Amino acid sequence: MKRRVFSLLVENRAGVLGRVSGMFSRRGYNIDSLTVGVTENPEFSRMTVVAYGDELTLDQIEKQLLKLEDVITVDILRSGSSVCRELILIKVKANREEKQQIISLVDVFRANIVDVAPDSLMIEITGNAGKIESFIKLMDGFEIESLVRTGITGLPRGKFEEE
Amino acid sequence: MKRRVFSLLVENRAGVLGRVSGMFSRRGYNIDSLTVGVTENPEFSRMTVVAYGDELTLDQIEKQLLKLEDVITVDILRSGSSVCRELILIKVKANREEKQQIISLVDVFRANIVDVAPDSLMIEITGNAGKIESFIKLMDGFEIESLVRTGITGLPRGKFEEE
Repeated sequence: MKRRVFSLLVENRAGVLGRVSGMFSRRGYNIDSLTVGVTENPEFSRMTVVAYGDELTLDQIEKQLLKLEDVITVDILRSGSSVCRELILIKVKANREEKQQIISLVDVFRANIVDVAPDSLMIEITGNAGKIESFIKLMDGFEIESLVRTGITGLPRGKFEEE
Repeated sequence: MKRRVFSLLVENRAGVLGRVSGMFSRRGYNIDSLTVGVTENPEFSRMTVVAYGDELTLDQIEKQLLKLEDVITVDILRSGSSVCRELILIKVKANREEKQQIISLVDVFRANIVDVAPDSLMIEITGNAGKIESFIKLMDGFEIESLVRTGITGLPRGKFEEE
């Protein structure tokens, strides 16, 4: 099972999200995450879809995506030549002592405390998949009350060779 | 036109994203953004949907969401009592002088430079809708090469009154 990040440029129209997610569910392909937002040009949206599968399945997904109405381009974001990031919010139950321990970990990970209540802390952290998973594992040592994640978004890095 | 942030707890099943986005497109409701990711319990995902409409439409959306298969709960994230965040990546064309100007703005907004190439910079910024829009407006003064956004995710703040 490999993981591939697809970056789709699509027309900013009502049905396009349904078409993309429908293609995945109809064909039984696994979506690990999907994010969508308008681009610098409001006529277009950029959708980032992370899928798992064998090489053949991932190639088929790419072909099927290209066939969909309103999908203009499909790029693959490879780890060396692109920047992929995700944002998560975690609310953790914490007494005074645990708060101190959590704040130390938050500093190490360059995360941010975004809310403090008498018995809980809410933390915002952004990073690549590896950093996020490591932080969640550390927080598993405390009582996680809730966790939301945006899913991965990404862009190709700037080129160093120019014609 | 009002803006409402719906936070849905859903079963982590293949078709649920298609059902939610399909309901919006079939009924002609406008989705401003949608993010989805697994929660602290891998059986469930949390989906954050931002929609625009009049009061009546937004109330109808809430009712229709609750009727959907695999949708367990629908909460509304209100600005005072919740934390909402988005992550964006912007790639901006920049010569040496423009880079200096952009880096100063990045510092003010506590954003991060995540990639540098001879003629461009890539910036990561997280924040609420207002901060993100202000930063994009400032970057509009430069040449934006590409922009991706995760869409909004959020959680209710911790409570200060406990029984």
